[in-house]
Parts: sequence; C-alpha cells; structure tokens
Amino acid sequence: MLGLMQNQPLLISSLIEFAQRHHGDGEIVSRRVEGDLHRYRWADCARRSRQVARALDAMGLQFSDRVATLAWNGYRHLELYFGVSGSGRVLHTLNPRLHPDQVMWIANHAEDQVLCFELSFLPMVQAMHARCPGIRQYVALCDADRLPADSGIPNLVSYEAWIGAQPTDYAWPSFDENSASSMCYTSGTTGNPKAALYSHRSTILHAYAAALPDVMNLSACDSVLPVVPMFHVNAWGLPYSAALTGCKVVFPGGQLDGKSVYELIEAEGVTFAAGVPTVWQMLLAHMKPDGLRFSTLQRTIIGGSACPPAMIEAFRDDYGVEVLHGWGMTEMSPLGTVCTLKKKHDALPREEQTKILLKQGRALFGVDMKIVGPDGAELPWDGMTFGNLLVKGPWVLREYFKGEGGDPLVDGWFPTGDVATIDADGFMQITDRSKDVIKSGGEWISSIDVENIAMAHSAVQMAACIGVRHPKWDERPIVVVVKKPGAQLTREALLRFFEGKIAKWQMPDDVVFVDAIPLGATGKMLKARLREQLEGYQLPSLQAVDA
Amino acid sequence: MLGLMQNQPLLISSLIEFAQRHHGDGEIVSRRVEGDLHRYRWADCARRSRQVARALDAMGLQFSDRVATLAWNGYRHLELYFGVSGSGRVLHTLNPRLHPDQVMWIANHAEDQVLCFELSFLPMVQAMHARCPGIRQYVALCDADRLPADSGIPNLVSYEAWIGAQPTDYAWPSFDENSASSMCYTSGTTGNPKAALYSHRSTILHAYAAALPDVMNLSACDSVLPVVPMFHVNAWGLPYSAALTGCKVVFPGGQLDGKSVYELIEAEGVTFAAGVPTVWQMLLAHMKPDGLRFSTLQRTIIGGSACPPAMIEAFRDDYGVEVLHGWGMTEMSPLGTVCTLKKKHDALPREEQTKILLKQGRALFGVDMKIVGPDGAELPWDGMTFGNLLVKGPWVLREYFKGEGGDPLVDGWFPTGDVATIDADGFMQITDRSKDVIKSGGEWISSIDVENIAMAHSAVQMAACIGVRHPKWDERPIVVVVKKPGAQLTREALLRFFEGKIAKWQMPDDVVFVDAIPLGATGKMLKARLREQLEGYQLPSLQAVDA
Repeated sequence: MLGLMQNQPLLISSLIEFAQRHHGDGEIVSRRVEGDLHRYRWADCARRSRQVARALDAMGLQFSDRVATLAWNGYRHLELYFGVSGSGRVLHTLNPRLHPDQVMWIANHAEDQVLCFELSFLPMVQAMHARCPGIRQYVALCDADRLPADSGIPNLVSYEAWIGAQPTDYAWPSFDENSASSMCYTSGTTGNPKAALYSHRSTILHAYAAALPDVMNLSACDSVLPVVPMFHVNAWGLPYSAALTGCKVVFPGGQLDGKSVYELIEAEGVTFAAGVPTVWQMLLAHMKPDGLRFSTLQRTIIGGSACPPAMIEAFRDDYGVEVLHGWGMTEMSPLGTVCTLKKKHDALPREEQTKILLKQGRALFGVDMKIVGPDGAELPWDGMTFGNLLVKGPWVLREYFKGEGGDPLVDGWFPTGDVATIDADGFMQITDRSKDVIKSGGEWISSIDVENIAMAHSAVQMAACIGVRHPKWDERPIVVVVKKPGAQLTREALLRFFEGKIAKWQMPDDVVFVDAIPLGATGKMLKARLREQLEGYQLPSLQAVDA
Repeated sequence: MLGLMQNQPLLISSLIEFAQRHHGDGEIVSRRVEGDLHRYRWADCARRSRQVARALDAMGLQFSDRVATLAWNGYRHLELYFGVSGSGRVLHTLNPRLHPDQVMWIANHAEDQVLCFELSFLPMVQAMHARCPGIRQYVALCDADRLPADSGIPNLVSYEAWIGAQPTDYAWPSFDENSASSMCYTSGTTGNPKAALYSHRSTILHAYAAALPDVMNLSACDSVLPVVPMFHVNAWGLPYSAALTGCKVVFPGGQLDGKSVYELIEAEGVTFAAGVPTVWQMLLAHMKPDGLRFSTLQRTIIGGSACPPAMIEAFRDDYGVEVLHGWGMTEMSPLGTVCTLKKKHDALPREEQTKILLKQGRALFGVDMKIVGPDGAELPWDGMTFGNLLVKGPWVLREYFKGEGGDPLVDGWFPTGDVATIDADGFMQITDRSKDVIKSGGEWISSIDVENIAMAHSAVQMAACIGVRHPKWDERPIVVVVKKPGAQLTREALLRFFEGKIAKWQMPDDVVFVDAIPLGATGKMLKARLREQLEGYQLPSLQAVDA
C-alpha cells in the first residue's frame, strides 16, 4: 500500500523559486573579474535564471542537452546553475585549471552544445574552439559592450545580450526527479577523466543534508563565502544549500589572495566560509603581521586535502573560528563526512579535541560507509583497524557517464579508493590511498605514516613510501628520499630515525636516494611513475638471498 | 537522460540504522508510567526495534498491515516507530484522549491487527476490544510480570515477552519509498475522522527539513524533550529527526505537570523542547514562585495553538530561552512553517521582534504556500491581505485514507481551512478559520479579531463572532457574548467599545447575549452549533427594513 502524500518531484527549480518567494531581498554579492563588487538579490537571481532558461529554449536546446561553463564563483554562474538545470538541461562545469587540450577532450566527451565562459578564459576558448565542433553557441560572461571584437570564436554572444532579450517570466517544467541535472569530471590520475552525472533528486537531498547543524549549519541569518570553486563538484553544493536556506551569499570571483578574501569577509559580514587549506594559509598569513581580527566569521569548512593541525588551532585559539574538516569526492556530490564534535567531547582537553578534529569526520545522514579488508569482509570501527573505504547513498555515484570504466560498485557500494579507519563514534580518518597502501603479510602499512616520519627528518626534502614485491610478505615498504640541498644523510641514519616512531614490522626495509620524485600538475607525488622508475630495484633482504 | 546516482529508497529503517552506527551510545531517557526513569542507548533501541520487526514477522503480519499504539512518549513507543514502519507495516498511532467509542471506530476503520497499549489505557482497551474483531494481538507495553491477570482481553501479551523471545538480528527490507509508513486520524470537528497516510519518503524528507537550523536546529549535541505526543502526528516528526541527528532524547511519559517537566529538563540537560502552550504555562507557573532557572534549555518550539505574547516574552526575557512558533497540520506531517527571525530583524526593538514572533512563520523548504481570494486568485504577500491558505509539497496530503472526503486538492494545492496573511518576508500569520471568517461585501473580516476585542472588555467572559446572511453584503458580523457573572453590559456599550479599535465596516452589526456558548471536547467554540442555535435571528438593519 502506498502512502497518500503528494507526488512532488525534487527539482532544482524549486530551490530558486523558494529563495525568491521567501528570501527575495536576500543579498548575493560577487567580486567580478573586472575587480568591482556586484550586488543584487535572490529575486534578481531568480528572474535572470528564468531568462537563462528562456535563452536555452530560444535556441532549441533539448531536455538533457549539456551547457558547459568555464567560470569563477559569481552571480552569473549561479544563474546558470538554476537556469540550465531548472529548465531540464545539464549543467557541465568545466575545470579551467586543466590544460586546454583536456578541456577540449572533456567538452567533446560530454557533447557540450553551449559554452559559457568568463573573459579571463578567452585564450583557453580560443585555443580549443576549432576542435569542439559540437559547441554551437559561445557565451562570454560579460556585458554586451565588453564582448571582445575579432576573438575568432564563432557564434559568440555576451551573456547580457543573450539573456537580456528574453522575457522574465517562465514556468519551470516538472519532470522525473532522477533526471540528470549537472555533471563534473574527475581529475583521474590514470586514464581519461570520467564524469559523475548528478540528478535533481541527489542534488536536493544533498542540499538538505549539507545545511544541517552538524554539517554546514546554514540559516537565513548566515552570510556564506564559497571559496571552493563552483567549477568543481558544484562548490560542495553550497549554491543549492544557500537557496534552500535563503542565506546571503558572497562570491570571491578569482581573487583568492589573503588580502582580498579577508576584506570581503569583513565587508560582507561573512559568518561561514568554505575553502581549501592553501587559501586559508594565505588568509592567515595576511592577517597575522597586522594583528587583524574577524568580526563576524564563526565557522570554516576545510576540504580537498587534510588540514594541518596548526591551522585548526590557529583558527580556533587565535581567532575564535571553528574549523570543520570535510571529506567527499566528485563521485559523492561531494559531501560524505564532516567533523563536528559530539557532546561527550566537550569535556576533553583542547589537544584531544584537535586530534578528533583532524579526522575526516562523521557521515551525513544519507551516506553509509564501511571499511573492508582485502577479502571484502567488513572491519571493526575501533579507530585502529584500517581498510578500504566504501560508501553508498542517494547522492553517491552508481556508474560513470557513458558507462566509462564499467561497473564501479562492489555489492552496491562505491569504493572510494581511500584506506581509512573508523572509530567507535563513527569518526572516519583517511590513512592512505588504496593503491598506495603497502600490503605486508596480510597487514597494511600506511605509506603516508612512513612518509610523514621521513619528512620530519631535518635532512629530508621530500619522501615517498612505496611497496616493493616480496615473495614471503607480498610487499615490503621502502622510502624514496630527496635530500635537502647540501644535507648529509645515510640510509642507516634514516632507518634509525624510524625506531620507536612506528612498529618494527612497519619500518621501511630500505632507503633509496633520488634527485627528484615525479610530481603531477597539482603537486601530488606520482607514485605509479616512481614505481616504473624503480623497476629492477631489489630489496636488500632478497639481494642477500640471491647472493 | 537520467542521472547516474545510486537508486537508494528513502526508508525509515535507515534512520535507526544510522543512529545505531553513528550514535550507538547516544542516550534515550524515558519517564515510565511506573514513575521511574528508564535509560538506554540508540544501539539498544535499534536492537529492540529489530525484535519488534521479528515479532511482527512471527505472527505473519503482511506488508502494509496496520499496527496500532495507545501510548505515551517513551522508549517502547519509539521502538514501535522503527520496528513497525521499518519492516514495512504501517504504524497507526491512536489518540488516547478520544472517547473509547471513537478509538474503536478508528481502529476498525484503519483495520488495525495489532494494538500495543500502555497499561494506563487498560480500561479503554477493555471497553472497546469486543467491538474490534480485526485486532488479533494485544500487546501491553510492560514487563512480563506486570501483565494484568483476568483483564478479559484475548490474545494479550506483555511487550517484553512479545519481543524478548525474538532474535536481535534482522535484515531491514528494501521497498518503494512511497510505501505507507504510518497514519494519523484528524480530529475533525464535523463528520467522521479521516486519516493521513504518510510514506517513508515523506517522513524522511520531513525529518531532514525539521532538523535544519532555521527549523528545530537539531544536532548530535542536543538533548531533546518532545512533550508533544507521539500519538499525534508523530510528535512533529521528532523521533525521526532525532535519529537522523543522533541527539539525546528525553521522553516525559504522561507526567506533564510543571514540576515533573522542569525536573526532567534540568536533570537531563535538555537543550530543546517541543510542546503546546498549556504545558509551558504549567512549567512557567511552577518556576516563578521559587525563582527557578534553566541551566541548559536554549530553545522551545510551540505549536498546536497560538502562543500568547506574554509567554514568548517570559521565556526570552526572564529565562533567556528562544521561543519558536511552529505551525502545521496532521495533513502536513505536520510541519509547514516555523517562525525564526531573519538577519535584518536583529536591529529591531524587542517589541517589534515579538510582533513577528507571534506569526506562524516562514515555510520550510519543501512546503509551498499561497493565499487566495474567494475566486481562487493568488493574493499579494503584503502582511495585510488575507485569504485562504493553501499548501503543497512532498509531505503534504494528496488524499485521505480510503478516499474519504473525496479529492481535497484544488489544482494540486491542499486547502488548509485557515485564513492567513503572508508578509513580504514570507512570514505567514493565521487570522481565522476559513469557515469562520465573515465575508462582507467582497472583503473578509476576521472573526478572531472581533472576538479578541470583545474579550478585552472587562465584563465579557466569552465572545464568539459569527457571520449572518445579509442581502446586500452577503454576510455581516455579529458578536455573541457571555457576560461575566454579575457584570453589567449593554449592546450599545460593547459596540462603542469597538470604536477606534477596528475599521468601521469590520465592526459587528449587533451583540447577542447568551448564557453559554457551545464548546467541543478540547475547549474550542463550536460555531457551527452556535449558528444553528441562532437560526431565525435577524440583523437589526434588516428588521428595520421589514418594519
């Protein structure tokens, strides 16, 4: 027997309609590429989102057709979020940090038909448009009088001219809530990028969960600064959660230096900011010399990579700002966990609290997680045992766009590729990437733990721990080290340095000194390449056997 | 094109599973009918919920079969919430405040097969069971050794014996999220009661929305006291939102006197309480004489009927407790609006804030609302114009159980039966019931406004304003008055009292003195009966025309 509640699909259009009706005068402030601040209200955003929908209708774009963006965080990008998805098309946020060839490849793979780009990305568009035959409309996110002449880009129109001619009324269509709403490609370290294809349902459910008190804690009284880019996993869903709560939104555009971010926080009464450690590092570095203070900022959420303890402590102890560690993935819309303490942690000393706050945190309701061993059996939540982290839920990926990479699920669970522990209170902590963890004698050794110890040695500039095949133990860890210029360090001295800092069986079997460790475009160590470079390397213990 | 996120239905079983995994040691404290405090944890609740599911399986109860409860707020009731709905049956919470004949009628109409009842309701069950042939299992919510002998009730078992024999493991089934999960009958003032039939989907979406910062603001650090009964609209969904957030829950059982509630709040560190004005009145009356203070309480949500301004001010100014006005209906799961201020109200003087706080508040995301005139046309949100209030959303009723009362919707909107204003900020205020508002010359007059003025006169004990047919104006208001014992009051004096307090055309045409105004069981004035009693009454102006 079915319940007798109304059959109302969960649609992204309802977010902007709600924001208009209930928070029509709520402010949206954007730093533009021109450098000035643009301000308007949710009612304006709603009106112009409807004009976007009209413009897409006018060019005959069909349901589910893709509209791409190459844009910073700003009001026009926000209008595209609602206008494109709300009218039934799929918003495809391209990552401008990629090489134009990659952007071109992704735009073609996604079959984008419209590309809306910030003028700062004009050179990139000029470099790729000839090889993107599917794009039939280019829209420069600018006023009509700023449209560059002789750009060489065909079918180019300014955003303001494009939407300006459209009527401001529009009846948002109703359709299956499982329809695709937006997409984002992963920056996979191997193989071609693959896309997560979000639905209206997954987006709305994620928006509810993200706004909860133990997650981002968003209310209509908040002023929110999404430093995390709207071109990557929808800025952690903040545009949607902001509309759901009617909070003020402050977009930083492309200016993420400490001074610009600090001034924006102060001028716009920002209470909550979401960003990555590097941006916060610049912010704190700007503030410290002049003894600057926050007058309104209460909380930040930090994700993308692990947050250094010193940063958590600086925000909390020096500035009275709560730091939340968040964890997620493109394949998870993206939020999976946020680290907010429980009542029982109130009484802990600050250092103990910091230890917990360094974890990735507790799952949002809607995300199930578990850790499993190599045999797939679930492992205990004891905060010690680590295993492959798997997740499931209505905003977790089922398969990639066009079926790329086959069926990624394991018994309905998505393998995150991370190795993690989960403690008895449900706090998850990433300990390694699955492909980097060293499997030794049925036990796992965290490559990151080994690297962190090596990096603590004063003579070490960079260290990578990798597993090397071993006939008895399957794998044994070695540490590959780049010495600091002019520093003296022997294999034996570094191995002694590990003593007492790690269990004996987890200690590396060898130290290999190299001149450089291969790095990727974002600064991550490319361990796969390192393993290739070390082909033919033999562990000392095996050399002994051979001899 | 559909999105490629996981197809995971929204099910109530996922709430208790989540609470167990992430907040297994979170406390649930219950005042039992025996008077003592029972305490256990979410993990215990989950285990025993699975035993409930097992017990229902063991008796062969089918998917969607109804399991009724006659119970206070307590841990066993909570286990039934999850065990019954989670296993695919429908939880039917009966209202023990009704007459046994009504309860019997409702249980038969719902086709209840199991009835779980608190021992305090034994006499009620004894009075009705012979006329409830469909109930094949009676479960007394008590220990085995407290089961009454010679109760005369067939197939009676104690709850502890019923679930105690069952295994504690259970695989919650997966099914369509639109399946019926629970039901609640409205206490309609006319005709037979009609039931709202909630679904798993509507319940989960409501639970997300209810926990948001601008609604109940529930986090794992909260200790929540649901004084609102679990037998009526699922205690505003608090059992579900509590599991979703992992907060501590404190159940008051049947002891709602000021002393008991105060002591429970203090002993259990309650931070948030949900109740009706009468209970809070008793609480404040208990605290005032002894100068008692709250040490942990931060917020209360008040609903069921409008909250007096003095109560809002007393909580806020004397005790530092924030009072939220909530509004909803059985047909709305129940939450529709909650009155939380916006940022721009921060600067208002307290009296101005109180005026806003007296409104029913802003819609939760998920609920759409509008006001319409007699012609169905939407009216402006200006805080002045009032019209019939209509709502829609995924947790709003589509039709009643068994189609009773036909199709209640108007173009997809549910008419609430309330007349309301909505201001430009989206704050809704109920001004009257639709059937009571007086339609005069195309304009509406709030019967409540007229009554409130009359009641302010020192000689008036009770006043009811009703509309009387008028050939030119359709209706004109008159006020029916019961004088205080011994008080002197003339028609002319009371009419003069209205001058300057209300627009001239809104003033009553006549005053009719009566000895008593008919009241319903819950103390509400029965205006339909009053109109019957005044059949044959003629307005003075029409008498003049006749003469």
